[in-house]
Amino acid sequence: MDATNLKTIVSPKSVAVIGASSRPDSVGMAVFKNILFSGYKGIVYPVNPKAKSILGVRAYSSILEVPDEVDLAVIIVPNTIVSKAVAECGEKKVKGVVVITAGFKEIGEEGLKLERELIEVAKKYGISVIGPNCVGIINTDPEVSLNATFARPFVPKAGSIAFVSQSGAFGVAALEYARKRDISISKFISVGNKADVNENDLLLVLKDDDRTKVILFYLEDLVNPSEFMELSREISEKKPILVIKSGRTLAGARAASSHTGALAGSDEIYNAFFMQAGVIRVDSLEELFDCGVAFSTQPPPKSNRVAIITNAGGPGIVATDTIVKSGAVLANLEDKTKERLSKVLPPTASVENPVDIIGDAKEDRYEAAIKYVLEDPSVDGAVIICTPTVFTDLEAIARTIRDTVPRYGKPVTVSFMGTEDMEKASKILEEAGIPHYIFPEISAKVMAKLCEYGWWIRRPLTSVRKYEDVDKNRVREVIERARKEGRTFLPEPESDEILSAYGFNLPPYSFAKNLDDCLKSAEKIGYPVALKIVSPDILHKVDVEGVKLNIEDGEHLEKAYREMMERVKRNKPDSNIWGVLVQKMVKGGKETIIGMKRDPLFGPVLMFGIGGVYVEAMKDVSFRIAPLRELTAKKMIREIKGFKILEGYRGEPPSDIEAIEECLMRLSQLVCDFEEIEELDINPLMVLEKGKEALVVDARIILKNV
Amino acid sequence: MDATNLKTIVSPKSVAVIGASSRPDSVGMAVFKNILFSGYKGIVYPVNPKAKSILGVRAYSSILEVPDEVDLAVIIVPNTIVSKAVAECGEKKVKGVVVITAGFKEIGEEGLKLERELIEVAKKYGISVIGPNCVGIINTDPEVSLNATFARPFVPKAGSIAFVSQSGAFGVAALEYARKRDISISKFISVGNKADVNENDLLLVLKDDDRTKVILFYLEDLVNPSEFMELSREISEKKPILVIKSGRTLAGARAASSHTGALAGSDEIYNAFFMQAGVIRVDSLEELFDCGVAFSTQPPPKSNRVAIITNAGGPGIVATDTIVKSGAVLANLEDKTKERLSKVLPPTASVENPVDIIGDAKEDRYEAAIKYVLEDPSVDGAVIICTPTVFTDLEAIARTIRDTVPRYGKPVTVSFMGTEDMEKASKILEEAGIPHYIFPEISAKVMAKLCEYGWWIRRPLTSVRKYEDVDKNRVREVIERARKEGRTFLPEPESDEILSAYGFNLPPYSFAKNLDDCLKSAEKIGYPVALKIVSPDILHKVDVEGVKLNIEDGEHLEKAYREMMERVKRNKPDSNIWGVLVQKMVKGGKETIIGMKRDPLFGPVLMFGIGGVYVEAMKDVSFRIAPLRELTAKKMIREIKGFKILEGYRGEPPSDIEAIEECLMRLSQLVCDFEEIEELDINPLMVLEKGKEALVVDARIILKNV
Repeated sequence: MDATNLKTIVSPKSVAVIGASSRPDSVGMAVFKNILFSGYKGIVYPVNPKAKSILGVRAYSSILEVPDEVDLAVIIVPNTIVSKAVAECGEKKVKGVVVITAGFKEIGEEGLKLERELIEVAKKYGISVIGPNCVGIINTDPEVSLNATFARPFVPKAGSIAFVSQSGAFGVAALEYARKRDISISKFISVGNKADVNENDLLLVLKDDDRTKVILFYLEDLVNPSEFMELSREISEKKPILVIKSGRTLAGARAASSHTGALAGSDEIYNAFFMQAGVIRVDSLEELFDCGVAFSTQPPPKSNRVAIITNAGGPGIVATDTIVKSGAVLANLEDKTKERLSKVLPPTASVENPVDIIGDAKEDRYEAAIKYVLEDPSVDGAVIICTPTVFTDLEAIARTIRDTVPRYGKPVTVSFMGTEDMEKASKILEEAGIPHYIFPEISAKVMAKLCEYGWWIRRPLTSVRKYEDVDKNRVREVIERARKEGRTFLPEPESDEILSAYGFNLPPYSFAKNLDDCLKSAEKIGYPVALKIVSPDILHKVDVEGVKLNIEDGEHLEKAYREMMERVKRNKPDSNIWGVLVQKMVKGGKETIIGMKRDPLFGPVLMFGIGGVYVEAMKDVSFRIAPLRELTAKKMIREIKGFKILEGYRGEPPSDIEAIEECLMRLSQLVCDFEEIEELDINPLMVLEKGKEALVVDARIILKNV
Repeated sequence: MDATNLKTIVSPKSVAVIGASSRPDSVGMAVFKNILFSGYKGIVYPVNPKAKSILGVRAYSSILEVPDEVDLAVIIVPNTIVSKAVAECGEKKVKGVVVITAGFKEIGEEGLKLERELIEVAKKYGISVIGPNCVGIINTDPEVSLNATFARPFVPKAGSIAFVSQSGAFGVAALEYARKRDISISKFISVGNKADVNENDLLLVLKDDDRTKVILFYLEDLVNPSEFMELSREISEKKPILVIKSGRTLAGARAASSHTGALAGSDEIYNAFFMQAGVIRVDSLEELFDCGVAFSTQPPPKSNRVAIITNAGGPGIVATDTIVKSGAVLANLEDKTKERLSKVLPPTASVENPVDIIGDAKEDRYEAAIKYVLEDPSVDGAVIICTPTVFTDLEAIARTIRDTVPRYGKPVTVSFMGTEDMEKASKILEEAGIPHYIFPEISAKVMAKLCEYGWWIRRPLTSVRKYEDVDKNRVREVIERARKEGRTFLPEPESDEILSAYGFNLPPYSFAKNLDDCLKSAEKIGYPVALKIVSPDILHKVDVEGVKLNIEDGEHLEKAYREMMERVKRNKPDSNIWGVLVQKMVKGGKETIIGMKRDPLFGPVLMFGIGGVYVEAMKDVSFRIAPLRELTAKKMIREIKGFKILEGYRGEPPSDIEAIEECLMRLSQLVCDFEEIEELDINPLMVLEKGKEALVVDARIILKNV
C-alpha cells in the first residue's frame, strides 16, 4: 500500500462520484448530496451516463470525460460493473477509489470473484481501494471538509479523534452518537471488506496526520497482526489507540492436543495481542467515544493513583468502586494535603480520598480542593464530581475547574450530575478540553483507562533476550528423526532432549528399555523415582495407566514396572512401546504449566498457569504472543490470580519466579526458532524455592503436520 | 411503620410547605414552586411566620393556623427547629412529614442528637417521617400530580416505574436521566437518612400500588435485611425489584479467625443476599433505568434462550457476545424454523442464530423473521436489531415490530442503530411499550437481565429442610462447658462432637492423652492415621507443627508423637495441651471447605468452596445467608468455578454432591439453632465418590464473646 496515495485519497482536492444519481432515496443521490452540501472545499464531479446534471451540477457520462485531474472517485454503480468503473479510473489516473457498492465477498462465492477481479484491476493501475461494501469517508479538516458517505448529511465538528470502522452499521451509529454527544472528530473511515486498504494502512496515514491525536477502531478481524503490532507499538507512544474488537465470546472450540491449545480461545489471544501492542481495548461504542474524548484532551497520568473530589457521598462511593474494579487505585493523600484541606473545608468534610467537600460547597471550595489534591505528588489524576444543590452554581464551578486544572498537568474527568444549568456548564468544560460525563461511574472508568495508557507509555522498555547457550542442531536432529519416521508426536525422551538443548532444567532421568535397565538407572539416579511409559502412540500417559510415582526402592520398582506394562498393554494393546523413562522424583515445589500453541493468525501463543487439575477447571492462565520481551514475561506470570501462591502464601517460602520468567523466554526462543513445533506443553514445570530453579517434570511436543 | 399512613403521605390530598419562602434560589421557594406549578391536584398551603403570601398564595404563620385538614407537611426550616415544626404537625394531626432539611445524622454527633429528638417527637404524635436530608417525593398519578422536591420543576410522565433513592444526588441525576430519555415513572421517593421511613416501608406501599409495575432502588445500606428479604421474595413474584447497591469494592477487611470470615467481604454477602431475595442487582443508574423500561413492559421469558434478528453482521456479533457474557444463552433454532426462514430470506442470509436478514431487508423480511423466530418453542425472547441502510424504512419496521411482537407473548428488546428517522420510529415503539436502545449491547444486556428475572419467578420452590436426627442437648452441653471455662475457641474434639450431634459424618477418631493411649487408639482405628494436637490455646495447628499425616504403623506413630510434642512445645511453649486426636486417614476424595461467619447485619453467612490453598488464593467460593433452602444449597455449590472438578473431571468419578448439599443444610440448621456460634470452618470437608458421603476431616468453631 502506498501511504502517500492513501493520504491524497482521504484529503482529495477533487472527487468524482461514479453512480451519482438524482433518484430520491438512492445511495447515489445521498453520497453526492452529502459532498455537495457539506461544504467540500474541492471540486465534485457527478458521473452518470444518463444524466446531464445532478442537483444542478453538470454531470459527465464517464469519468474519462471529466476535464480536470481527479484525486478520488467514489463508486456506487452495481457490483457487476464496479471493476469496469475502476479500470476507467485507472485510465484517468485517479489516485484511489472508495467503493460503497455492496455485493462482494460478504455475499459468498460469486461476490468473492467480483472482489478479486476488482482488486486485480486496481493493482494493474496502482489504484488504492477503500471498501468495497463500506459507508464512505469523512474528513473534517477545514481545508477539506468532505463527507463522502451516505450517512446523515452533516460534517461533525473538526476535532482530533479519528475513527476507523470495519462495520458500516457501527460506523453510522458512531457518527450519530458523535453528533448527539457533540463529539468532534478528525476523520471517519469505513473500511468495509478491506479488500485493499486495511487497518495497517490507515495507522500509517493517521500516524502522520497532525489533526489526529487519538485513533479509534471498530475491528472484526486483523489482516496482518504482526504488522499491526509493530505499527501500534510505535504509534501508541505518541497517539493512543483504542479498539473495540467484536466477537469476544465466539471463540470457536478448536481441536487441540495440548492444554495450551485447549485453553487459548481467540478472544484471550486478542486480549494478549492488544496488551502487547499497547492498544487499549474497550467493550462498547459508548466507552470508545467516552474514552476518545478524554484521550484527545488529557495528559496521560504518571501512574494509576486517582483522587476523587465530590460534594456528595454516594457518587464518591460509586466512583471509588469503579476505580478499583477497573484496575486503578485510590490515591493515599499525603498528610500535608489533608492538613491543607482541613483548614479550608468544614469539619464534616472528608479530607481522606474520596475527598467529600459537602453539599453546600461553592466554587471556592472546589478551587481549594482541586489545588491541594492535584498538587499532592501522590495523586496522578482526579475525578471531580458535583451534584447540584441550591448552593451550587454549576457554571461558576465549571469556570473554576477550567481555570484551575490546567495548572497541574494532571488529567481530570468531571461529572456534573445533571440539572438545569448543565448544558452551559458542560459547554464551558468542553471548550476548555475537559471531559465531562453525567455519571461518575463513567468519569471513573475513563480515568482508569487513562491510567492504563499512562502505564503503557511509561513502562520500562525491555527487549527480547537471546540465549546463546542453546543447541539448535540437536533440536533439528530430533525433529528430523521424527519427521522421517512420519511422526508428529515426540515422546518424552525426545521432548526432554529438545528442552535440554534449549537450557531448560530437568530432574535426573534415564531412558530404559527393560526392567534391568530400569533398576540400574534408578540405582544410579537415586530413589524415589517415577516410571513413565514411552511410546509414540501414547499421547496421554495417565489415561492408559502409564505413570507410576514415588517408587521407594527396587522391590517396589519391579512391582510397579510389571503392573504398568501389563495395564498399558491392556489399555492400548496395539501401541509400539519403546520402553520407560525413569525419573528422579522432585521434592517440594509448586506445579505450574507453560505451553505454546501456534495460532494460524498470530503465530506462537505462549501460556502460563498454575498447574494441576486447576489449570483447566479454573482457566487461571495468561497468554502472550512470542517473541516475548522481559517485561512481558514478568507481566504474564503476575497476571494470574494464583500468583500469590508463588509469592509465598501463608508462610511458605517464595518460589523461584525468575526461573519461570527464564523458562518462558527460552520457550519463546525455541518456538520462534522452530516453526515445525505446533504445540508444546510443559506440565508440570515444578518451580522450587527462590534461587533453586524450576524443573521440567513432564513435557509434550507436537509437530506440524506436513 | 403504619403503611396506610405512608400511602396517604405519598398521595396526599393536601400539603403544607413549612418553610415556604419567596426568596429566589432558596429551597423553600423551589419546593413550593414545584408543587404549585406542576399541576398538583390537591391544595397546597405555604407556611411562613413572616410572609402574608408566597407566589400569590395566602400564607399561614404556623401550620396550626391552616383552616383545613393537612395530609402531608414538607419541612424546610433550619435543622434546630425541625422538631418543633414536627410537634406542631402533630398537634394539627398531620399524617406525615417529608423533612428536606439537612444537618442531621450525616453531620455527626450534634446532628444525630437532633435526629433522635425529631424521631421522638414524631413517634409521640404517630407521624411518619420521610428523610431528613432528602430531596422530596414525586407522584405522577394524574389524580395527584405532585412534585414535592427541590429538583427541576417538572413532573415526569406517568408510568409504571417507581424509584426509591437513598442518595439525594443520585435521585436528582436519575430524574434528569429519566427526563432526557423520556422515561415515565410512577413514584419517586428520596429517603435521605431513613430516620423513620425506610426501604421496607416503601416496599409495602409499592407492593399495593397499582400504578407501579417495577421497583427500582438506589441503596447504600439496608435497615433490616431479613425483613427486606421476606418482603422482596414475596413482591418479586409479581413486581420485579432492581437495585443498585453502592460500595461494592469497599468491603472492609474485618478481623476474622476463620477462612469463611476472611473471605466473606460485605459485597459478596450483599450479592448472595439479593440473589436469595429475588432482587436483580445492576451496576449503574443507566442500567437501572434501561432495565426498568423493559421490566415494566415485557413479559418475563420462560427460560434464558435468546434469539437475535439483525440486518447487519457486526451488531449481531456484539449482541451475541453480550448475551453469552451476561449469563443467558443463544437459542438453537429448530430445523423447521430454519427451513421456514430459508424460504423467505435471500440465500446470503443466515438462518442460524443470530439470524442475519441482510442489509437490504425491508419490513416484510422483519415480519417473517420475527414470526418464525418467536414461534419457535426453543426461543424465549429476542433482540431485534436494525442498522439503517437506504433500503430500510425505520418507521415501517417499527410499525411491523409493534404489530407482530405482541402476538407471541415473548419479550423483545430493539436496537435501531441511530439515524435521521429514529425519533419517529422509536416513538412508535415506545408507545407500544417495546423497549428501544440505540446500542445492541444494551438491548442484549437488558434481555439477559429479563432472563435472570424469568428464571427467578419460575424457579422450583423448595423449603428449608428440618433434620430431626440432631442432638441439641449435646451441643448445648459442649457450648456451656466452654463458656464456663471462659473459652470461645472449641478444640477439635469439641467441634467434632458438635458436628456429630448434627449428623455430620466424621472419619473414625479418638482423643488420646498420652502416647500409650495413642497407640491403642490407632490400633483400634486402623492405620494409616493422622495425629493432631489438641489445645484450647492453639487455633492454627499447622502453624505450630501440630499435625502429622499418613502415619503407617506404631513405630512411625511413636516417632511422630514425640516429634510433634517437642515442636509444639517449642513453637508455643505456654499452651495448655489436652492431648492429641488420632484420626483415621481418609483415602481419596476431593477437598472442599464449608463454613459460617455471623455477620452483624445479615446473621449467619454460609460459605462453600474448593479446599486447599486455592480457597484463599483463588477466592473461588460462594456465599448464602442461612437458613438455606434446598435450591439455594444446590445453587451455591454449582456457582463456583471449580464445580466441574466435583462433577468428575478428566475421567475421574463424580463426587457425592448431594452429601455436600446435606452438609450445608445441616450447617444451616446448626448455626440457626445456636446463635452462640460466631464462626465455623469445616476444612477440609472431604467429599468422596457419589454415594459414599462427605467426611469432616478438620473443623474449628469459635463462639461469640460474652
